[in-house]
Amino acid sequence: MMDYGQGSGPLKNWIVAEKGFSTAHLGKSEAILSLGNGYLGLRSATEEPYLGEKRNLFVNGTFNQAAPNEVTELPNMADVTRIDIRVDGGRFSLELGGTETYIRQLNLKTAELQRTVDWTSPGGKKFRFRFRRFVSLQSLHLIGMKWEAESLTHPAEVAFDSGIDAQQSNSGAQHFLEGERRVFGDSMLQLVQRTGQSGVDAVISTVHRLSLNGQPVGAAPSKNMARRKVWLSFSVQLQPGDKLEAEKLSTVHTSRDSEWTGKPYSLEKLQERSVRELEEHAAAGYETLFSRHAETWKKEVWDKKAVVADSDDPFDQLALRFSLYHLTVMAPAHDDRMGIGAKALSGEGYKGHSFWDTEIFILPHFLYADPGTAKSLLMYRFRGLEGARKKAKANGFRGAMYPWEMAWPSDGEVTPEWGDIDIVTGTRQKILSGLLEQHISADVAFAVWQYVNTTGDREFLEHCGYEMVFETADFWASRLEWDSGRCEYVITDVIGPDEYKEHVDNNAYTNWLAYFNLTLAVKWAEELAADASAQFGGLPARIAEWREKAEKLYLPGPRQDDSVIPQDDTYLQLPEIDLSKYKEQAKVRTIYRDYNAEQINGFQVTKQADTMLLFDLLGQTFLHDDPRLSEAAKRANFAYYEPRTLHDSSLSLATYAIAANDIGNTALAYSLFKKACGIDLGPAMDTSDEGIHAAAIGGIWKTAVSGFGGVRQKDGILEISPRLPAAWHALKFPLLWRGRRLTVEATKDRLSVSVQDGGRIEFESHGRKYGAEGRIELPLGRNLTVNR
Amino acid sequence: MMDYGQGSGPLKNWIVAEKGFSTAHLGKSEAILSLGNGYLGLRSATEEPYLGEKRNLFVNGTFNQAAPNEVTELPNMADVTRIDIRVDGGRFSLELGGTETYIRQLNLKTAELQRTVDWTSPGGKKFRFRFRRFVSLQSLHLIGMKWEAESLTHPAEVAFDSGIDAQQSNSGAQHFLEGERRVFGDSMLQLVQRTGQSGVDAVISTVHRLSLNGQPVGAAPSKNMARRKVWLSFSVQLQPGDKLEAEKLSTVHTSRDSEWTGKPYSLEKLQERSVRELEEHAAAGYETLFSRHAETWKKEVWDKKAVVADSDDPFDQLALRFSLYHLTVMAPAHDDRMGIGAKALSGEGYKGHSFWDTEIFILPHFLYADPGTAKSLLMYRFRGLEGARKKAKANGFRGAMYPWEMAWPSDGEVTPEWGDIDIVTGTRQKILSGLLEQHISADVAFAVWQYVNTTGDREFLEHCGYEMVFETADFWASRLEWDSGRCEYVITDVIGPDEYKEHVDNNAYTNWLAYFNLTLAVKWAEELAADASAQFGGLPARIAEWREKAEKLYLPGPRQDDSVIPQDDTYLQLPEIDLSKYKEQAKVRTIYRDYNAEQINGFQVTKQADTMLLFDLLGQTFLHDDPRLSEAAKRANFAYYEPRTLHDSSLSLATYAIAANDIGNTALAYSLFKKACGIDLGPAMDTSDEGIHAAAIGGIWKTAVSGFGGVRQKDGILEISPRLPAAWHALKFPLLWRGRRLTVEATKDRLSVSVQDGGRIEFESHGRKYGAEGRIELPLGRNLTVNR
Repeated sequence: MMDYGQGSGPLKNWIVAEKGFSTAHLGKSEAILSLGNGYLGLRSATEEPYLGEKRNLFVNGTFNQAAPNEVTELPNMADVTRIDIRVDGGRFSLELGGTETYIRQLNLKTAELQRTVDWTSPGGKKFRFRFRRFVSLQSLHLIGMKWEAESLTHPAEVAFDSGIDAQQSNSGAQHFLEGERRVFGDSMLQLVQRTGQSGVDAVISTVHRLSLNGQPVGAAPSKNMARRKVWLSFSVQLQPGDKLEAEKLSTVHTSRDSEWTGKPYSLEKLQERSVRELEEHAAAGYETLFSRHAETWKKEVWDKKAVVADSDDPFDQLALRFSLYHLTVMAPAHDDRMGIGAKALSGEGYKGHSFWDTEIFILPHFLYADPGTAKSLLMYRFRGLEGARKKAKANGFRGAMYPWEMAWPSDGEVTPEWGDIDIVTGTRQKILSGLLEQHISADVAFAVWQYVNTTGDREFLEHCGYEMVFETADFWASRLEWDSGRCEYVITDVIGPDEYKEHVDNNAYTNWLAYFNLTLAVKWAEELAADASAQFGGLPARIAEWREKAEKLYLPGPRQDDSVIPQDDTYLQLPEIDLSKYKEQAKVRTIYRDYNAEQINGFQVTKQADTMLLFDLLGQTFLHDDPRLSEAAKRANFAYYEPRTLHDSSLSLATYAIAANDIGNTALAYSLFKKACGIDLGPAMDTSDEGIHAAAIGGIWKTAVSGFGGVRQKDGILEISPRLPAAWHALKFPLLWRGRRLTVEATKDRLSVSVQDGGRIEFESHGRKYGAEGRIELPLGRNLTVNR
Repeated sequence: MMDYGQGSGPLKNWIVAEKGFSTAHLGKSEAILSLGNGYLGLRSATEEPYLGEKRNLFVNGTFNQAAPNEVTELPNMADVTRIDIRVDGGRFSLELGGTETYIRQLNLKTAELQRTVDWTSPGGKKFRFRFRRFVSLQSLHLIGMKWEAESLTHPAEVAFDSGIDAQQSNSGAQHFLEGERRVFGDSMLQLVQRTGQSGVDAVISTVHRLSLNGQPVGAAPSKNMARRKVWLSFSVQLQPGDKLEAEKLSTVHTSRDSEWTGKPYSLEKLQERSVRELEEHAAAGYETLFSRHAETWKKEVWDKKAVVADSDDPFDQLALRFSLYHLTVMAPAHDDRMGIGAKALSGEGYKGHSFWDTEIFILPHFLYADPGTAKSLLMYRFRGLEGARKKAKANGFRGAMYPWEMAWPSDGEVTPEWGDIDIVTGTRQKILSGLLEQHISADVAFAVWQYVNTTGDREFLEHCGYEMVFETADFWASRLEWDSGRCEYVITDVIGPDEYKEHVDNNAYTNWLAYFNLTLAVKWAEELAADASAQFGGLPARIAEWREKAEKLYLPGPRQDDSVIPQDDTYLQLPEIDLSKYKEQAKVRTIYRDYNAEQINGFQVTKQADTMLLFDLLGQTFLHDDPRLSEAAKRANFAYYEPRTLHDSSLSLATYAIAANDIGNTALAYSLFKKACGIDLGPAMDTSDEGIHAAAIGGIWKTAVSGFGGVRQKDGILEISPRLPAAWHALKFPLLWRGRRLTVEATKDRLSVSVQDGGRIEFESHGRKYGAEGRIELPLGRNLTVNR
């Protein structure tokens, strides 16, 4: 039903469309067509309700614990999108009567959701409905809606109920206390909510404007209130040819908004601000507000950050735009107390919690295209030190042990205790990641390294970066276990990126990243120790400990015979099973139909890129020339692990696509890129129900720019080594490096890099160094497979 | 769409049926066809879901406060009734495809909900579905469901999801913490819930059994778990003519169940009991369990309590059965810590709270047909003394001030603070009844009087009744205000039964009932004071105060000129408006479309029987011969107040019907009886959405037995003065009086009263006294209009 080839002329490859409607697949469109601006996230449920819909509206950062036995999560706010439309008293529903033409589409260029439907009522009257909606990027609190009803054949009464409905919950969990509801005059409504545990006030206000054939509709609506709801009921008589237009403008404000930080707050002030702002919006009207919003998208997003691919398959360009669209709507660029959830703000999945997904798969885009937002995301982790220290202490360690799942920065670990049902025992399974998936602390340190390296932001380094890296190093120093038999430090009983393996010892990724973390701390602390004004007490002793631990930490290296790095101490000794059945499935996690977690733990089967990610990440650090992470080892490990990896996490494909491209298998790389795009844009109709896959969407960008575009860094050196897939004729993208804005344009045989301010730019490409002012153009060789 | 003439042969007038299905009117059938047994109340939502449904399951007495700013209410438990049925992957829904024959009906005789539908899928395949359901009166924890799917024309895959879904809420308010979910084997599921504030554990278990053409279906279902949900997915391939039968048996147990009173409780024990009981049920199967249930209905209800009317309109008999059905399913006969909510257990309306509805409109049935349950309901009020004392104290009074709305006995006042929107100001209105509607305390005293008088239950009187009457008298004694100008006690600033008048002084009903309460206390206390073993301290002083206060209390009497008793001090001076517009409306409360509460307060308009109720109640006490409450005054007040009464409360019609009958206007009485029956059984399709009208259902019984049957009492004397409406040829009903079981049979010209044990029976009829052993037959005069 989904169509990604929509749009023609100037809108070609800007449109994600649903061309047929089915209630069996509501979640797909609700999620992938969702709107937002980093402050608000609004799932694209249709105006008229359907069974099975999820009508989610999230405000970033408003975490609340619904009950003492649940973890904190982003609460589902009151809904303003539902409009109950009746035609001659009968419900307007695409499941009733007849639908002749139907299209629902997200215009990525203007970030507007549009729907047009020609509908015949069960009574045989024809109507044209058109619905439009946006969440403003220009005015973060604003949701704009507009709809038209045109009677095509008969006189008819069109009536609708529209208001604010706080009967929403998070799949039954209610976060909000019931609050005040008001009606102002004949068109404005206000509803107040307050989270039960975290005490966040939310004020939702909405205003309506109706016109019939361009003339204001005079008749006053009736006013209604029910539990947690307030709404207006409108009724208009249409003659054939009459067109009813309705605008509904809504604002959402909360006491957590950064406007109130350090200022005297009261609910009354918030309510006043809400009304005042909405009155200004009402005076402007939908079209003006929408223009401002679309203009902001043009200037701030498409003009500045677009990745342009000239591909034989125009879908690739659409996917790149889809990626940038969602990267934009998911990022809380306005507030550094907030992160990006695994499903961003597009669904209840993972409760709005941030994972390592942000640092490893989403941050790269912001590092290179929007370093201000990258900094904001790292500041979120900096603020999270409080929770990370809490977690370390609770687990008997020192320093900062970052939570596997993070919500409000001071919350610490918020991973839920229980997961899905075990098909064998009939009981729920414990989720161990919160305790055992410890690489997250090193992942954060890696992100700090990347950010500082990319931007040269010394202020961040001094105020935040040092502390984050030193404290995570302290964690590892306290975490390592001395194996007196082996005379080295080991890390036992962890979960690596491959979550199909629980309670493993010496997961290669974890040990190497811990090593990186410790070594980075040594490196930076030594720089700092040389500075007399340094304020970190006891550095020499800490440096000594970090160095000793790093030096004696066991780092799994390539096996003698086949260069395969053991994923952990036992993986390579486990029995193998035929995985083809699961590899071929369009759905993920099908292996769970045959085996339970304990059984899967005992086979050579990997959920997602684990050892391969080592090569990607550490290859971009001062460890890039470690012989154990050589090009040959990368090839060998790719060959070994890819067949054993089910890509059952959306985090897997980008890593393998980039690795495949690096080792010259551009065809496989391109096919993995397509699969990565298909995680949300593909034909599977229910896998995005809980929300879009934020890491996979970051992975689309990462595969294009870091993979095909070849943008990496090595210890302070920018690398641009494009290697385009066969179908791609050109690739163009912006790149911010150390405060300079570059434009990179690559074809199969040429690379051009220009710098906006005309200053000097230096980079490496395919093993050679280049440097010049203003612009560098260079030829790309035909046979580049072994350059890295 | 509703049809009340269903059923033929032995089922004639036993069937309440819905013959067409529309999602516009789901609430009506859900409520009036609801099932229950006084412990459980289950709204009759269809198995397959529809937009706008309310899927309520309540367990009596499990009150919980969802949030600190809400009042306690009966929480909506996990649902077991929803079955998502798919045919060849497409949803079974009566809004899709074609429905040829359809009937949904409640068989009142067996208390079974039945639905049969011939349905053609959108793909053109024909099926017959049959659904059955009961809530066992024999085994209070049991819900039985059975359904059949028969493929009529094509091979087809029939699949369904069935389980336990705790994503329910009370219109958004979530009462339950998420609890454990388990799957046992391939058919049994269990889900645990716990209320957040009151800490009530609930265990819901369910078991499935499938057969295809009588043979067990072997294929195991898949097992699924989501937030607050656990379910099984079944799939069966049908050939034309194949019939799939599915049974689903569920049990509900809570930690509040009286089984645990005074016994060591643990959740584990509750879970074990739940499984053990369900295993026994599973071994018996639906048909056996249903037979036991139907047999209980026959023996305990229809054989013992039926009111039989031989009417020209067979609907009357159906309405009487409907009344007895709901009086039975609403009454917590099993547990005297529980009352009857204004909507019983059939909807969220009024939150499960008990009002004076119980004492005045529902209790009469139980007094005369099931005194054990009547006692249980009064014990609930006796236990409520704790809360009533709390309320008196909080308001600066002595004694027991009963809450206007009552939940768990010790809670005290639970009336919510806020009501509907004010159309003029746009804000919610304060609900003042909790503070000002004080007659409830006297209503409870009246009910104690009636119970003791009817049953002669001295044990209740001594252990409970005295205390209830004395403490409510203490309340009134402290409540009365001395008006030094008038030299009498007055009661200012109250709400009487007519809730359209707030802040009135000397509401006649309130003052008279307070007088009755004080006088009864004096009467009983004097009897008691004569008894040396009496345990109530300080009685003489209290008696003196009660007597002094009663004697000097202002009692509004008939006006000199027209015998009208002023409803309150100002009512008769208020301006009048034309009420015909609102009197003629089928809907209630239409006056609110034109006026707000403050405006209505200022007109001579009455919501419901107020002064007229005085005559009904006090005419059945030792005040029956007070000249101010004479037959002439009754006529005059009827003539004055009926035209000014909108009957905008379901509590109004029975009172006016009985009064009309008493004054000889049997035609009007019969028409008001019909209207009372129509409150739930009438054509209005949305007025029962929040639940059935428990008081109106009690009113049907009361109008028939107390009105047409003429059953009253006067200070210890039973009165049976039938006066049948023109359409009724005979009326027969049982009557328990002082422990004797009587059978009353009346026609227009004869009355026969027989006593089951053959003992002596005495009563008055139309002003004459009768007494005999075994049986009394007497002729009824033709012109009886002035006998009372």
